Amino acid sequence: ICDLSFPDGVPSDSLEAAKNASNTEKLTDQVMQNPQVLAALQERLDNVSHTPSSYIETLPKAVKRRINALKQLQVKCAHIEAKFYEEVHDLERKYAALYQPLFDKRREFITGDVEPTDAESEWHSENEEEDKLAGDMKTKAVIAEKEAAAAEEPSPKGIPEFWFTIFRNVDMLSELVQEYDEPILKHLQDIKVKFSDPGQPMSFVLEFHFEPNDYFTNSVLTKTYKMKSEPDKADPFSFEGPEIVDCDGCTIDWKKGKNVTVKTIKKKQKHKGRGTVRTITKQVPNDSFFNFFSPLRASGDGESLDEDSEFTLASDFEIGHFFRERIVPRAVLYFTGEAIEDDDNVGGPGGPCGGELEGDEEAEDDDDAETNPKVSCLEFPHLCLLHC
Amino acid sequence: ICDLSFPDGVPSDSLEAAKNASNTEKLTDQVMQNPQVLAALQERLDNVSHTPSSYIETLPKAVKRRINALKQLQVKCAHIEAKFYEEVHDLERKYAALYQPLFDKRREFITGDVEPTDAESEWHSENEEEDKLAGDMKTKAVIAEKEAAAAEEPSPKGIPEFWFTIFRNVDMLSELVQEYDEPILKHLQDIKVKFSDPGQPMSFVLEFHFEPNDYFTNSVLTKTYKMKSEPDKADPFSFEGPEIVDCDGCTIDWKKGKNVTVKTIKKKQKHKGRGTVRTITKQVPNDSFFNFFSPLRASGDGESLDEDSEFTLASDFEIGHFFRERIVPRAVLYFTGEAIEDDDNVGGPGGPCGGELEGDEEAEDDDDAETNPKVSCLEFPHLCLLHC
Repeated sequence: ICDLSFPDGVPSDSLEAAKNASNTEKLTDQVMQNPQVLAALQERLDNVSHTPSSYIETLPKAVKRRINALKQLQVKCAHIEAKFYEEVHDLERKYAALYQPLFDKRREFITGDVEPTDAESEWHSENEEEDKLAGDMKTKAVIAEKEAAAAEEPSPKGIPEFWFTIFRNVDMLSELVQEYDEPILKHLQDIKVKFSDPGQPMSFVLEFHFEPNDYFTNSVLTKTYKMKSEPDKADPFSFEGPEIVDCDGCTIDWKKGKNVTVKTIKKKQKHKGRGTVRTITKQVPNDSFFNFFSPLRASGDGESLDEDSEFTLASDFEIGHFFRERIVPRAVLYFTGEAIEDDDNVGGPGGPCGGELEGDEEAEDDDDAETNPKVSCLEFPHLCLLHC
Repeated sequence: ICDLSFPDGVPSDSLEAAKNASNTEKLTDQVMQNPQVLAALQERLDNVSHTPSSYIETLPKAVKRRINALKQLQVKCAHIEAKFYEEVHDLERKYAALYQPLFDKRREFITGDVEPTDAESEWHSENEEEDKLAGDMKTKAVIAEKEAAAAEEPSPKGIPEFWFTIFRNVDMLSELVQEYDEPILKHLQDIKVKFSDPGQPMSFVLEFHFEPNDYFTNSVLTKTYKMKSEPDKADPFSFEGPEIVDCDGCTIDWKKGKNVTVKTIKKKQKHKGRGTVRTITKQVPNDSFFNFFSPLRASGDGESLDEDSEFTLASDFEIGHFFRERIVPRAVLYFTGEAIEDDDNVGGPGGPCGGELEGDEEAEDDDDAETNPKVSCLEFPHLCLLHC
């Protein structure tokens, strides 16, 4: 857009001089004396002005100086903003304590330790409404049959496979779950988010609580995410609020022969001297959701990670954030699928699932959302990074 | 994905019954007695299970009852979340006061009322660094020439056309600015965000401060945005934090013949009786940025607005939010263009400008950002609505 090559008809000696970096002044003199070149330059400068950064370069020194002063003020703003986000984090800590009693109740209903009262389980579903009006009769028939069958089964305890179903519903997670992970994940009973204590460095821990099972002896698997809320010295303007900067997993105490994160392969080895061949077995890494608990470590500077590692790490951070920000606070909506459409609307993780709900009654809300003049107030638009 | 049409080989009488909505029971009996159909149904049900909502419908009543209990808890969470966002808004009020002294200094440097000290205007720019190493020599020559020319001009006061330049750099705004708006916007000296007082309903006012000019007598034009932070009774799960729900403009006291928001058109009128024709002049609305101050009003329910109006209103809210959240806090970065690339990264408003900066040194940072394992922590992913 701002190609500055000289137009035809510019004296070639000026061109030569232009290529010579050292004597700008000499060139300037020549240029000033050459109206033809000046005109050409003016024209180019007008184009230059169209890209902000080049426009700045054309401003008088006195003005540039004032712009630098504004930049200094902007850096001060970035540091105030960092403090703001720390206070927001404190607020999140405070509210985590307010949510906890509700999450504990949720866990009790899910595990079946506590049965909700009639009052607690009242719910008016538009869904049922719509069925009454006009649903897909074949589906209804099938469901009626299924319910009939279900009625004959002994009623299950709590909400079976609640968390595992969420893993299945959210693409971001189901992509990680291998067939052999599924029976293990069916023992998952709760996921908790624990924030670091006030005054401690910003971080949060995801706790995956499992019932006793045949696969590992841990009752809780943890994933810790370290965060940072301070502008980068080298690039303060890039500050966009707290970032996840590193994470740490935990050791899974697998029961004998149950470790799904490794597989044993047989390898033929030929003896150099005599041609005898022997078969050795070795363990190699195996795809599994449970690799989530032995993540890559982010080193101080991103440079020392290759691109693949950086991508892996970024995805891990995204998943960690998604557990913290969406799945744990709204688990039931990911279980029923109601939240998945929403995420699709905001282009969020798990969004792709939304497609499956097409024709679902949710779809209408969706359409409204697009034209609804009530616009969600983007307090922190930069937080979209992952969602766009 | 969950087509429930029966497979070939299912007795046609069951098929007929299936099509008959009224007697589900009769069908169910037939189905239960027909193992072939049952098997087919089971297979379909497995598919159904893949869409969460249908999966839920197939669960035993006792389990559905517990899910409803979780939904009740989820509504309670939504109301706690609303309170959280109100406290975040209080924090924003508190921090607005901390930013204000810096913004006042910014205004003084821009208007030229105060000249920054040498210490205040020190700035180490990578940009210059890069030029030193190896910049486009022709560009350097051109700029050197321009600077030379500029040096001869009387040095301007403050930073001329600071805010107008931002309007030009941000597509979302430049789209609204007509040629005849430009001379008016060159008199814009400051934009302030004022939050509602504590205890008052959530809202913010954009104040556009103008120097005395030939167009209108107002020194400040205001646009007020009313916000709401409470879950919708009918759809509590859709709550995603504070929303802009309405806005209000102000009266611009245009000087005689200076109102750019209307144009006078001549119209020929033919008299019914005698065929005489007379020309009348009437005023009709005219495209202008200044229509921003006489917005549509959102009525209580979105329904009563047609789609165009809803779209117009949504765009207005988006612009209002963008002024509040990005332009006012980071004005200098929109003036220099540095922030525009960032917004492009997050798919934010003004993003399209980013394209113009290709080849700019910013571009590298950009690439880093994409593979950088430091992932901006999405405290409020839903706030992406507008950005995706």
